[in-house]
Amino acid sequence: MDVVISGTVAFDTVKTPFGYEKDILGGSATYASIAASRFCKAGVAGVVGADFSDKYTNVFKKAKIDTLGIEVISDGKTFSWEGEYGKDFNNPETIATNLNVLADYKPKVPSSYVDCKFLFLANLDPDIQLDILGQFKKPRFVVCDTMNFWIVNKKKSLIDLIKRVDFFLLNETEIRMLTDETNILCAASKLMKYGLKGLIVKRGEYGAVMFMGNSVFCLPAYLLDKVYDPTGAGDSFAGGFIGYLAGQKTINSGFLRKAVVYGSVMATFAVEDFSVRGLVKNKLSDVNKRYKGFSKITGF
Amino acid sequence: MDVVISGTVAFDTVKTPFGYEKDILGGSATYASIAASRFCKAGVAGVVGADFSDKYTNVFKKAKIDTLGIEVISDGKTFSWEGEYGKDFNNPETIATNLNVLADYKPKVPSSYVDCKFLFLANLDPDIQLDILGQFKKPRFVVCDTMNFWIVNKKKSLIDLIKRVDFFLLNETEIRMLTDETNILCAASKLMKYGLKGLIVKRGEYGAVMFMGNSVFCLPAYLLDKVYDPTGAGDSFAGGFIGYLAGQKTINSGFLRKAVVYGSVMATFAVEDFSVRGLVKNKLSDVNKRYKGFSKITGF
Repeated sequence: MDVVISGTVAFDTVKTPFGYEKDILGGSATYASIAASRFCKAGVAGVVGADFSDKYTNVFKKAKIDTLGIEVISDGKTFSWEGEYGKDFNNPETIATNLNVLADYKPKVPSSYVDCKFLFLANLDPDIQLDILGQFKKPRFVVCDTMNFWIVNKKKSLIDLIKRVDFFLLNETEIRMLTDETNILCAASKLMKYGLKGLIVKRGEYGAVMFMGNSVFCLPAYLLDKVYDPTGAGDSFAGGFIGYLAGQKTINSGFLRKAVVYGSVMATFAVEDFSVRGLVKNKLSDVNKRYKGFSKITGF
Repeated sequence: MDVVISGTVAFDTVKTPFGYEKDILGGSATYASIAASRFCKAGVAGVVGADFSDKYTNVFKKAKIDTLGIEVISDGKTFSWEGEYGKDFNNPETIATNLNVLADYKPKVPSSYVDCKFLFLANLDPDIQLDILGQFKKPRFVVCDTMNFWIVNKKKSLIDLIKRVDFFLLNETEIRMLTDETNILCAASKLMKYGLKGLIVKRGEYGAVMFMGNSVFCLPAYLLDKVYDPTGAGDSFAGGFIGYLAGQKTINSGFLRKAVVYGSVMATFAVEDFSVRGLVKNKLSDVNKRYKGFSKITGF
């Protein structure tokens, strides 16, 4: 296995100006693992309830993702989220969050996963992320994501986690919140001091910025004429990013920049449809075509 | 003369979190002509009052800008603007606007200007912009800027103007307002139908997007650790853009992309100090150094 992705596996109910879909497959680990699976062999770790039927499991199987790490709680219900996007696609309104099986999640990473060298800790309680990280023997490249809720409520654990991972991902609001700095350069330099090798600030419809040592890489977003459902864009980005890297023989600054582009490609696919449909329907040739598109719109 | 820039020449009083300066040199034509003068011979057209002392005129002279087009109204006062920027550097609060000599401005373009091939119509009442444009004999490349006020109050004149220029500049809020489209791609395609050769959407701290026919060029903004005063960023961008092009032997898509980068370089210099100080203190070698910086942060 080239990469393990841990995080949430969820049922989403989503309303956007372009449609309404109920109980569709979602969750941070879902989007990220499916995006990663385009580039390498991925395994997923998470927890679901007995209501997680074959209809959902088959999506992972079709993408050739190892699902041994998805624990099924036979008397539990799958974590679910309901949200609505207005005109501001960056900030959905949460209508309901049902933690269900996530409330008592005690991750047990399968023994077939723990030697894996690439690990993406998608958004979860940072204490659980630390627990999962601790179960891996000697990961070579660990990427971690979070959200505003943990910055407010579990800042200490989150900082402990940042000190132990290689790359950290967050959005602009989150990095400002976490560092108390308005200027993104100053905020990034503050976070990098915890010993990170790199930091990626996700800027939604404006692209992403990667910080590594003293170097900066800025990628604008691809302009899309249809954005149906922005759910999972960040996780798809992260999955594409680490999936591409896990598929290479080495990690260097050139591959890291390319990984940001591939991550962005996967994010654009994710938002073009509801659930993970935009991710699964695009072949590797589509991925490479859009990668070239990024090159075309940014070169000078 | 390679390029003529018409617009406002003003006294600004500006407060930002980093300082307060009173009656400093400002105005759309000021920023744009000084930025353009880095790349070619520029002339400026506008109107000022008797209070526009040598202290201000000398700034243009030092930049070797032709000021014959600046009309002095001997019994009038120079247009002035007072504004304050809070944390949101994109939307200053206007404290006072005194039109003064601008209220009755009847532009008379000097005969030495009217054969010029490159023209930038910086932000002004679109009827005045049309008047100025009409005084030029056969301009080859006309770029035009505007602001939300004219979109709301003079939409018809503005559309007439758009039909007669080559390139149009505006920011994201303005293009959405003007086209009633939220999606930038759809909004741009709607505006391009008026016969524009190109369209540039300025995105402030997120860079700029240029549309030309079916091609798109996205440039992220340079990350700066100090932004002291964002006034004039858009005009400096426009001045650098057209100034660079006016200095070339031909216009093609490669030069247009480079022009967007040079425009962005000038915008970064403008915001690093109050008034036009950031523009005048940087030499051509500094310009080229930052241009290379853009190339470094965007390449993959």
